[in-house]
Amino acid sequence: MLADDLNSFPTVPRLSGSDLTRLEQLLANLRERTGTFLGYPVAKDFDCSALAPFLDLPLNNLGDPFAPSTYQVDSREFEREVVAFAARLLRAEEDSWWGYVGNGGSEGNLYGLYLARELFPQGMVYFSQGTHYSVSKNLHLLGMRHIMIRSQASGEIDYEDLRETLRVHRDVVPIMFANIGTTMTEGKDDIGRIRRIFQELAISRFYIHSDAALCGFIAPFLKPRPAFDFADGADSISISGHKFIGSPIPCGIVLARKRHVERIARSIAYIGNLDTTISGSRNGLTPLIMWLAIRQLGEEGFRARVARSLEVADYACTRLQQAGVAAWRNPNAITVVFPTPAETVCRRWQLASADGASHLVVLPNVSKGQIDCFVADLAAGGCR
Amino acid sequence: MLADDLNSFPTVPRLSGSDLTRLEQLLANLRERTGTFLGYPVAKDFDCSALAPFLDLPLNNLGDPFAPSTYQVDSREFEREVVAFAARLLRAEEDSWWGYVGNGGSEGNLYGLYLARELFPQGMVYFSQGTHYSVSKNLHLLGMRHIMIRSQASGEIDYEDLRETLRVHRDVVPIMFANIGTTMTEGKDDIGRIRRIFQELAISRFYIHSDAALCGFIAPFLKPRPAFDFADGADSISISGHKFIGSPIPCGIVLARKRHVERIARSIAYIGNLDTTISGSRNGLTPLIMWLAIRQLGEEGFRARVARSLEVADYACTRLQQAGVAAWRNPNAITVVFPTPAETVCRRWQLASADGASHLVVLPNVSKGQIDCFVADLAAGGCR
Amino acid sequence: MLADDLNSFPTVPRLSGSDLTRLEQLLANLRERTGTFLGYPVAKDFDCSALAPFLDLPLNNLGDPFAPSTYQVDSREFEREVVAFAARLLRAEEDSWWGYVGNGGSEGNLYGLYLARELFPQGMVYFSQGTHYSVSKNLHLLGMRHIMIRSQASGEIDYEDLRETLRVHRDVVPIMFANIGTTMTEGKDDIGRIRRIFQELAISRFYIHSDAALCGFIAPFLKPRPAFDFADGADSISISGHKFIGSPIPCGIVLARKRHVERIARSIAYIGNLDTTISGSRNGLTPLIMWLAIRQLGEEGFRARVARSLEVADYACTRLQQAGVAAWRNPNAITVVFPTPAETVCRRWQLASADGASHLVVLPNVSKGQIDCFVADLAAGGCR
Amino acid sequence: MLADDLNSFPTVPRLSGSDLTRLEQLLANLRERTGTFLGYPVAKDFDCSALAPFLDLPLNNLGDPFAPSTYQVDSREFEREVVAFAARLLRAEEDSWWGYVGNGGSEGNLYGLYLARELFPQGMVYFSQGTHYSVSKNLHLLGMRHIMIRSQASGEIDYEDLRETLRVHRDVVPIMFANIGTTMTEGKDDIGRIRRIFQELAISRFYIHSDAALCGFIAPFLKPRPAFDFADGADSISISGHKFIGSPIPCGIVLARKRHVERIARSIAYIGNLDTTISGSRNGLTPLIMWLAIRQLGEEGFRARVARSLEVADYACTRLQQAGVAAWRNPNAITVVFPTPAETVCRRWQLASADGASHLVVLPNVSKGQIDCFVADLAAGGCR
Repeated sequence: MLADDLNSFPTVPRLSGSDLTRLEQLLANLRERTGTFLGYPVAKDFDCSALAPFLDLPLNNLGDPFAPSTYQVDSREFEREVVAFAARLLRAEEDSWWGYVGNGGSEGNLYGLYLARELFPQGMVYFSQGTHYSVSKNLHLLGMRHIMIRSQASGEIDYEDLRETLRVHRDVVPIMFANIGTTMTEGKDDIGRIRRIFQELAISRFYIHSDAALCGFIAPFLKPRPAFDFADGADSISISGHKFIGSPIPCGIVLARKRHVERIARSIAYIGNLDTTISGSRNGLTPLIMWLAIRQLGEEGFRARVARSLEVADYACTRLQQAGVAAWRNPNAITVVFPTPAETVCRRWQLASADGASHLVVLPNVSKGQIDCFVADLAAGGCR
Repeated sequence: MLADDLNSFPTVPRLSGSDLTRLEQLLANLRERTGTFLGYPVAKDFDCSALAPFLDLPLNNLGDPFAPSTYQVDSREFEREVVAFAARLLRAEEDSWWGYVGNGGSEGNLYGLYLARELFPQGMVYFSQGTHYSVSKNLHLLGMRHIMIRSQASGEIDYEDLRETLRVHRDVVPIMFANIGTTMTEGKDDIGRIRRIFQELAISRFYIHSDAALCGFIAPFLKPRPAFDFADGADSISISGHKFIGSPIPCGIVLARKRHVERIARSIAYIGNLDTTISGSRNGLTPLIMWLAIRQLGEEGFRARVARSLEVADYACTRLQQAGVAAWRNPNAITVVFPTPAETVCRRWQLASADGASHLVVLPNVSKGQIDCFVADLAAGGCR
Repeated sequence: MLADDLNSFPTVPRLSGSDLTRLEQLLANLRERTGTFLGYPVAKDFDCSALAPFLDLPLNNLGDPFAPSTYQVDSREFEREVVAFAARLLRAEEDSWWGYVGNGGSEGNLYGLYLARELFPQGMVYFSQGTHYSVSKNLHLLGMRHIMIRSQASGEIDYEDLRETLRVHRDVVPIMFANIGTTMTEGKDDIGRIRRIFQELAISRFYIHSDAALCGFIAPFLKPRPAFDFADGADSISISGHKFIGSPIPCGIVLARKRHVERIARSIAYIGNLDTTISGSRNGLTPLIMWLAIRQLGEEGFRARVARSLEVADYACTRLQQAGVAAWRNPNAITVVFPTPAETVCRRWQLASADGASHLVVLPNVSKGQIDCFVADLAAGGCR
Repeated sequence: MLADDLNSFPTVPRLSGSDLTRLEQLLANLRERTGTFLGYPVAKDFDCSALAPFLDLPLNNLGDPFAPSTYQVDSREFEREVVAFAARLLRAEEDSWWGYVGNGGSEGNLYGLYLARELFPQGMVYFSQGTHYSVSKNLHLLGMRHIMIRSQASGEIDYEDLRETLRVHRDVVPIMFANIGTTMTEGKDDIGRIRRIFQELAISRFYIHSDAALCGFIAPFLKPRPAFDFADGADSISISGHKFIGSPIPCGIVLARKRHVERIARSIAYIGNLDTTISGSRNGLTPLIMWLAIRQLGEEGFRARVARSLEVADYACTRLQQAGVAAWRNPNAITVVFPTPAETVCRRWQLASADGASHLVVLPNVSKGQIDCFVADLAAGGCR
């Protein structure tokens, strides 16, 4: 019997006409809505059409991408290439790193914090006010002690508050949750400076996780290069795949120092399994999506995307200011912040708002034309 | 400016010829490997071709599918229909349930246990020896006390051991993790019987989670109907989407009593957010995949799939026994267990093995012809 | 300048005549006292005269014997041979073990319990009533939860009490402290039987430490071979060097599964050091003493020592019984237990006593002549 | 029967010729290597030849040296004299102290910290950055809260940082771990000054442990006399025997206020034993080695050793500076610090290095001739 015969399943009933119509309608609506958002940090210029045939297969990247598996309908080889590309970009020392493609930046953060907890069960997590709310959810899930530190107006952590808070907790190992691009203002914590604070306080044991959801593939191309990666002292880093890189499915890359992961692996070994991922059964399509982006763009392609985004972000900020809007952005940021405009404008452009501020995230797909269009609309609608 | 113009991004560079070849080669390999596995509980007869166009869109089912969201490029309306279909099938009382489509059965179990921990922080989790190893991982993640209970040979929990163990821990609220189909033998714990044990011991507060990864869409159609769902007393249920239902991406449906989830929502409220899902950013494609299956098959379609699987499973068991193999299966199970055959046979059919036993999982796509082919191969290769 | 010149120190003043006399007197007294003890488990038939010249050197086996060291005045090469010999005897799998020569059985037990605590910080230690008091001291030092289990009259643990106690604590990982020869009666816990109890109770994670202070080099030569070593499931084993082997300085060998030790090593790495031993600066003479014994005797020499001891122990037991003393011993034990005799007899033969019982430990140096002499004395002095 | 007859054991087989050769080769190698180290704080000018005959005896200083013991093959009487000598030197009030000879400075520190934990289970340990890594290991073993305080360049603790840190933890009893000679620079913490800080902060309950591993027998002879001993307020003191005193076996003397030890004795009493030492079975040879040194040298002999060491240390510092090396030493220190020289020089003289610095420890056996030799070598090899 041939494999082909083995694949000849009983036919699945076809979708009814009305259902098909609903699906087509959804597609049309989504296309339209996709056109008009500027407020979410989600790139739209990806091309995954080459992956459509894979929708026929029961893909499953079971367990650790670097461990052998009996289940072979997977894309783990491509996943390893993706993770290796990111490891190089984030200056991990050769053979000293481990990672996988997960379901998004949030899972990557959960993973980093989980590693930190296994290493320092009594550790104290520090993170700034600008940190995404999902981090608090994760800390609650993991049952970790934590302290929220003040943010500066830029969204960057308030180093003085951090120093003073660390000072009164020098008996517990600090677990630093660093934002490499906060959600609202793209503020970046400087982990070099944070490590100098540790040094001043004679804190020799610590853990640093970089939440580089948005900026993981931006920061390596900036000048000056922000202090955020493995060479700068990070123990683990989380990057979103569906933000700056672009993906039809939320996904992310998480990287960590191998020796930390081996420590977890060992603690799981008693359970009789070496799976160090969080999910077990894992999406096999998203590694291909990431792989596609990496092969299509290469390091130079990403560099060009960053340059383009920065240029348009600068343009947007200037144009808004010219239009009388109190817009601003952090140095080298692609996020432009301004007072929340009228409700209608917010709805049309799907702007999120918090504490009276809204933002554009100028991803590589955003053109100056779109900015013009938005500024015109804003000028017409006025600020709230 | 029209939405169309807003969607005209700078073109993504095309994939190189050699990369394209690698991708085509992967596709070919995966197709071949898909043909020859019988040992994994993964249905192959799904048809998602209608969803290919959605791979162009930055879909993201952000947060709770039942809460409003400003991000509108999502399939949350379809997700709600999927969850509602499952709630009906699992006999949840109207308006008393909540749920979402997550990344697989493991996430569903994590969610159920998390709910239980929020309700009963000092609770003790009980689960049988046959439980999937990922549950121990999740319990470690959540920091929950737990006791492993003996299994019967069938894979069903040993009720006597459970009773005696509960008896010495009557001061802590039991959190029952029930297997509705263990990984190796498809043993099903009877939550009706478990509740009677609680009653005998005058235990009035408890939590029951049903891990119905494989059998969530099978058990409702069996006669007698196993005791496992909301009407039987479950507080939360996890079902895999990529097992019996079939999906190119691992996914799952998790359902829980609404009042439990509201309780979590409350405890998360101090974070300032009502997102009760684990991930935050969520896959928008898998709800469509589930929706497609549900609309294509309907309840009757699923009933027919179950009947067909049981028939072929019975055929497989008989044929193996006739060939001299000590095969067996639990009543109404689609899993056929037998002594682990020779290495070459295991590799060819991607059979997992544990403690000297292997199994076929007779999903709806498995035909009698394939069974014949397997039995012939086994007869030739011999048992280990 | 030559090394010889570098070694020409200013002369140390000589000892005064009276001090010299005191030292000579001590030596004479100790020689006499050595002759007349039968109640301590301390072999006297060793010959370390070849090591006298090493008393001139500042020996120090700094840190882990298997890690490189800049301090080179050590005997770590010989230490590794000693540990390897013991690993073979105790059936450790090749390349899967680690160990060192420490300051005695008590340090070995502390080390094993420390490893267990690092692996299972919430684990519960179980040990029998017959356990040496230093174990309680160590548990207090380490801050570990523990439960004392009843002993049988033989000194072996009461398996029924163990089972029932484990049953009510199935939510915490058990850390079994097994006696392979209790101090008073040389009762040996059967770790095979203990593991079967774990299995019955579906306890899949546990740690077993064998305190083989006296019997570590006896048990491997017994028929039937007691279940106590790595092949039987021990995670760590402690053996005294100054008991059955014989040494002028208390010492011991501790062995553990390498993966456990690596786990500790990693947790210490954050301190900036890979020293996994307890002491740091370590005795360099005792590894040479152990090495000497191993090279002088070899495996066959130890086998002969065991045979001789058992024969004389049997003789002693019989002779005492013939003399009307209610003496007994465990099967294959070299310890003969009897009611505590008169004070004068106890003092003369340095007999320890507890709960009305005393014992002879028939080490290889004990002759039938000595036994006769002791029995005669006892007969004259009578029992208390 | 005579004791002599009782001592006539069966003859131990002789060592084979090749083994004997290996032993002789080791001895020769060690002698050579001993000649060429200057970087380790280990005196070489001891003469223990008088103790060779004791290698024939099963010496064991079981338990507390001040409590009665039935095992009489010990040197506990001599041990008590050693401890008494040290107690006088360290100005313990008569009858108010207790101590024993243990396995080295590290055990002494463990003992002091253990005492402190028993007295103040919730106490916070403070120690400077220059503290030996084994202290962190011990704190981990004991499970004690601790804070590392900044060091000054000299290696002495930063009193300002200490004061500020104490200020924020005035609710927990401080346990001061004072270095009386740090490993790298021989920085000495001033416990008088530390007590004044306690006083300023109205901290009336505290514990001070002096780690005088190197300087325990140096500091009493210095002018001005450093504040470090019992009269200065220490609660326990640890001294190494194999550092300044000199010993072929690592050993140490630990001393503590008697009332603290009695408190531990009480807490151990429930175990049914009054053994307050850590080991139980203890080395009987090292007390004799210490006794020998004390009787050979007397207080005056030690005073002379200190004077000689200081003179040669001063000479070494000057000569290095003259040779253009940026050498320095703390006032009254025998440790000379300088930039780490070339690899070959480090290897030849067994120099340890940390953070780019190395050191000579000018023990009494080091002559000006050796210093000349080293400086010449360094000048030839150059600094790294």
